[in-house]
Amino acid sequence: MSQFSPLIDELIEALRCLPGVGPKSAQRMTFQLLERNRPGAQRLASVLARAAEQVGHCRSCRTLTEREECPICADSRRDQQTICVVESPADVLAFEQGGDYRGLYFVLMGRLSPIDGIGPEDIGVDLLVERVKALGVSELILATNPTVEGEATAYFISEQMRRLGVPVSRIAHGVPLGGELEYVDSGTLAHALKGRQRFE
Amino acid sequence: MSQFSPLIDELIEALRCLPGVGPKSAQRMTFQLLERNRPGAQRLASVLARAAEQVGHCRSCRTLTEREECPICADSRRDQQTICVVESPADVLAFEQGGDYRGLYFVLMGRLSPIDGIGPEDIGVDLLVERVKALGVSELILATNPTVEGEATAYFISEQMRRLGVPVSRIAHGVPLGGELEYVDSGTLAHALKGRQRFE
Repeated sequence: MSQFSPLIDELIEALRCLPGVGPKSAQRMTFQLLERNRPGAQRLASVLARAAEQVGHCRSCRTLTEREECPICADSRRDQQTICVVESPADVLAFEQGGDYRGLYFVLMGRLSPIDGIGPEDIGVDLLVERVKALGVSELILATNPTVEGEATAYFISEQMRRLGVPVSRIAHGVPLGGELEYVDSGTLAHALKGRQRFE
Repeated sequence: MSQFSPLIDELIEALRCLPGVGPKSAQRMTFQLLERNRPGAQRLASVLARAAEQVGHCRSCRTLTEREECPICADSRRDQQTICVVESPADVLAFEQGGDYRGLYFVLMGRLSPIDGIGPEDIGVDLLVERVKALGVSELILATNPTVEGEATAYFISEQMRRLGVPVSRIAHGVPLGGELEYVDSGTLAHALKGRQRFE
């Protein structure tokens, strides 16, 4: 790509740190920004620099935030007796978009993964235990992903909670709404069958 | 999207100025950068700010560059007698990736478009005429896009060149290599037929 001036090459290369952006998209983004949207580029540069520097973790739930405590933890109208444990901030958003859940969250920022050297201290289990004790939580909902590592993480946390005597639940896994049985994988079907409930 | 902290919302919003990036991708990019790639984010912010401020146009061919003259115009080994006229810097790249063309370029940074108020002065026709005179160009190749506006632009420039007595050519339009006749549109086929050459 030595056809361009060095700074333009550098911008194309730098844009490739974005997920899903290959060489062609990076080129297209570069030209679009430089030809048509300098104010947008300048604004993006400034917000990005500030976010990369200032965003840290919520001291209560570990999600990403530039404040000491995230807006959800700081909101006293949320149900302080229920904590939903998720793997990432994007999972929090998924629940919030549904709007049915009014409790708090705890964001592991990952999952247990011994081969990657990710242990309980990396996913903040100590902080979770502390928080559960401090709030006197009446239910802990495990919403880690239904992968091998997500299940192992859920199991590990449930063991910790058992010691504290805190009731633990796991979100249901089954056929998604609008899904057709024909196209659902056998693992999901097995879960759906096992998790069946009385029809009323 | 008020579920996040303001700075994170702002970053998601700012990323949407990139072409092809909707709300979901912007979210994914934000989390990826903040969770896993702060150095990449910081580098992108810095390069973007510098590029938005420093990149201007080559004084000879109008392409994007942070220098006075772009690397191609500054390269004395290029054939100074031939100029290829294209609409955008991305078109220059397309030719350069082929590697068959060794002449210079002139980048219109757009095309004539009366309804958008884009006239000859906006696409730098004066500069092109000046440059053609100064270099004593022996061939001007028109490589604007085969759209209505691109064709009108090509026609307008060819008229200017006719007055200067400079030979003008237009790149061939026809069936692309590897293309199947069955799937080629009728306009392209008409061009292919009209532009046929003796088979040797």
